[in-house]
Amino acid sequence: MQFSSPIEIQTIAKLIGAKIIGNDSAHATGINEIHKVSFGDLVFVDHPKYYDKCINSAASFIIINKEMSCPNGKALLVVDNPFESYCTIVNTYRPFEPSNSMLSDSAVVDKSAVIFPNVFIGNHVSIGKNCIIYPNVTIMDHCIIGDHVVIQSGTVIGSNAFYYNTKKDREVWYKKMPDCGRVILEDFVEIGANCTIDRGVSHDTIIGRGSKLDNMVHIGHDTILGKNCLLAAQVAIAGATTLEDGVTLWGQVGVNKTLTIGENAVVFGQSGVTNDIEGGKVYWGTPVQEAKTKQRELVWVKRIPELWEKVMGR
Amino acid sequence: MQFSSPIEIQTIAKLIGAKIIGNDSAHATGINEIHKVSFGDLVFVDHPKYYDKCINSAASFIIINKEMSCPNGKALLVVDNPFESYCTIVNTYRPFEPSNSMLSDSAVVDKSAVIFPNVFIGNHVSIGKNCIIYPNVTIMDHCIIGDHVVIQSGTVIGSNAFYYNTKKDREVWYKKMPDCGRVILEDFVEIGANCTIDRGVSHDTIIGRGSKLDNMVHIGHDTILGKNCLLAAQVAIAGATTLEDGVTLWGQVGVNKTLTIGENAVVFGQSGVTNDIEGGKVYWGTPVQEAKTKQRELVWVKRIPELWEKVMGR
Amino acid sequence: MQFSSPIEIQTIAKLIGAKIIGNDSAHATGINEIHKVSFGDLVFVDHPKYYDKCINSAASFIIINKEMSCPNGKALLVVDNPFESYCTIVNTYRPFEPSNSMLSDSAVVDKSAVIFPNVFIGNHVSIGKNCIIYPNVTIMDHCIIGDHVVIQSGTVIGSNAFYYNTKKDREVWYKKMPDCGRVILEDFVEIGANCTIDRGVSHDTIIGRGSKLDNMVHIGHDTILGKNCLLAAQVAIAGATTLEDGVTLWGQVGVNKTLTIGENAVVFGQSGVTNDIEGGKVYWGTPVQEAKTKQRELVWVKRIPELWEKVMGR
Repeated sequence: MQFSSPIEIQTIAKLIGAKIIGNDSAHATGINEIHKVSFGDLVFVDHPKYYDKCINSAASFIIINKEMSCPNGKALLVVDNPFESYCTIVNTYRPFEPSNSMLSDSAVVDKSAVIFPNVFIGNHVSIGKNCIIYPNVTIMDHCIIGDHVVIQSGTVIGSNAFYYNTKKDREVWYKKMPDCGRVILEDFVEIGANCTIDRGVSHDTIIGRGSKLDNMVHIGHDTILGKNCLLAAQVAIAGATTLEDGVTLWGQVGVNKTLTIGENAVVFGQSGVTNDIEGGKVYWGTPVQEAKTKQRELVWVKRIPELWEKVMGR
Repeated sequence: MQFSSPIEIQTIAKLIGAKIIGNDSAHATGINEIHKVSFGDLVFVDHPKYYDKCINSAASFIIINKEMSCPNGKALLVVDNPFESYCTIVNTYRPFEPSNSMLSDSAVVDKSAVIFPNVFIGNHVSIGKNCIIYPNVTIMDHCIIGDHVVIQSGTVIGSNAFYYNTKKDREVWYKKMPDCGRVILEDFVEIGANCTIDRGVSHDTIIGRGSKLDNMVHIGHDTILGKNCLLAAQVAIAGATTLEDGVTLWGQVGVNKTLTIGENAVVFGQSGVTNDIEGGKVYWGTPVQEAKTKQRELVWVKRIPELWEKVMGR
Repeated sequence: MQFSSPIEIQTIAKLIGAKIIGNDSAHATGINEIHKVSFGDLVFVDHPKYYDKCINSAASFIIINKEMSCPNGKALLVVDNPFESYCTIVNTYRPFEPSNSMLSDSAVVDKSAVIFPNVFIGNHVSIGKNCIIYPNVTIMDHCIIGDHVVIQSGTVIGSNAFYYNTKKDREVWYKKMPDCGRVILEDFVEIGANCTIDRGVSHDTIIGRGSKLDNMVHIGHDTILGKNCLLAAQVAIAGATTLEDGVTLWGQVGVNKTLTIGENAVVFGQSGVTNDIEGGKVYWGTPVQEAKTKQRELVWVKRIPELWEKVMGR
């Protein structure tokens, strides 16, 4: 997320009890996970394996659990537990704000939008022109809904990322990472009934212009759909994945995290996409293959008995 | 859908700016998609491939983008864009009516029904005797709920059909076709929690007497279930498909559009039904096969290493 | 379920019109299905195949449709239709109590819990410390929510078991068995958006301490999850299944009823678990196998064409 205004790095260091190595007079403009950092960002790292990647990323400020040298202009913020420091910063600059009304005072809803009864609209939400939001929809804090968007009943926009800090040596293994990203539905997006679109952990989950989702579609945190994507019922996409423009996923397809599906790819129903796949092709199966390859494979399997008879003489 | 009263075909022609060829003094009694037309219906066609099918269907009035000759008694309504004309007629005779209350004044709910708090009941909905509707259910306009029906929490009845006019040469590829069909739940139907049952595009989605659906079941537009069907959790059925009486689908089964599953068929969990299947048999796999065929296939696959060793000498 | 206080067996016999054989002066302390009976319980049996199992179970009182001899200290309650008698007892001692408010007077919610608007909290529900319940959640009667529990929007806790008495010689084949079990979410459990967790038929559905569920997860009746289980989006688990501690199920996994998944097992996405599987291993496929076995099988299938060419000479 971006802070509402830049924050002196000394202020951040004080908040988390960090020692600064390097540029101690700069301002942080945001905080992000390593997947999506840019200049001015804080980022955190607690595993030696990722030290170099984080220090050499676009991020300007690295919260880290080891004293090291620091590239020019950047700063390290050295603490014992970078994950906890990250949580502290997020909870300070994007605090949990429970609502006690169905429509937050800080939400901005265009007058032309049709909002049915029993729709929850959280803090700082914005809803554009000519939208239709059907009954029993939930739109959590900070989500941005464009113009001409339709959201059908029972759908949840901006649910928490399923993203945990895991340590199996403590009693409760999984500790939720506080999320500060948003969901952005661009213009002409239509979302079916009982879908769930998780907010980004620190960046945004984005559904591109003109994309259409059928019922019970799940979109994970920080996942980005291009324009004119079409997702049939019960598709599930894990976190931080990218669908380029014009991708079609038929019913019950599952897509793994942090991968890319190329432009205009079509994936048949119930397939499992486990790796990057190129655009412009048709896919099928778990793990997914080109559909014609999968179809030939099904034919080959049918021929095993004939082979057996020839080789084994029954 | 059927119109509330017959409409002079001249009135329709004027509404959509059509030239009439043929019988210009008749009345239209309804408008339907080609899948489900009957005498008195309007239908539309914009592709030469389907001209003959539509003109020779049971429909009485064909909205078409070419001047042609017309069978006796019928009429062609010639326009530039039949799809837009269809939309205009539907939007005129079944206009979008946003509700601002949880229970529409035009809904009829039997006194013996138990309606929990936070249930949305739209316009022209009817709910029969001894129904139980649990909290946070949404029932959209024109749906018909029979007697002794149970609908559990979070379920959406009458969500919009996932049905789009597609043109990839415009900026927004998919344009939703306005739907005017209904959902009909017959007597003794029970629907689990967080299900979605889409309304028909122009006809009805019907769940037959005594059928039971587990949680998170998705039923597409215009799909028809017979009596005493049993659908386990997370089943998804696409549009315009037919399940005959007594069909059982186990968990996470996916069923393609516009096909038929025969009486008393049983389909094992996670199967993908891609074609018509006969009744009275047990099925498994994606694509679905008879379960015993699929089971043998699994055994054959296990034997490939033995074949390989025999043929290749390791 | 356990009765709120012990009931004289004579009172029960009178309620269901039963003849008592055996100990007619004892008290029943609860009623349960044969899966989960203990001393003091009533149980029912109507099929000769299960007579012995029920009579020799831990249950003290057997509702049965045949006069037989009875072990010392126990009692048989002989009736024509044991299933109907079971329903009568459940409906008497745990009657259906429709709520007309969003928060039942009999619910106990800790002051530190954050309850968003539009949450339905049924009769006799208890919610512990520091819980967060997001908008549009439904918590049905008798459910127990521990401390530090998070339930995201649209989720339904305590929906009815999908559990039917089936007789195909009557017009309506499936007759719902009234359920009297509960859902228990232990401390530090987190449930995603649009999940459904069914109550037990007569016992409890339990989500163990620290377990985390992603969105659209379905948990069937009487299923028990151990501690620190992790279930990704769109997982579905059927009834009366056990997941031991530390089990991980990736997205869209389906699990059959009445089986056990061992401690720390990991199951890859879209797998179908049809039998008991041992702990400490990694699994994949439908039907599920060890992942490395399944991976080798995929390689073998790719080699069929080479075998074919060798054997058949093209």
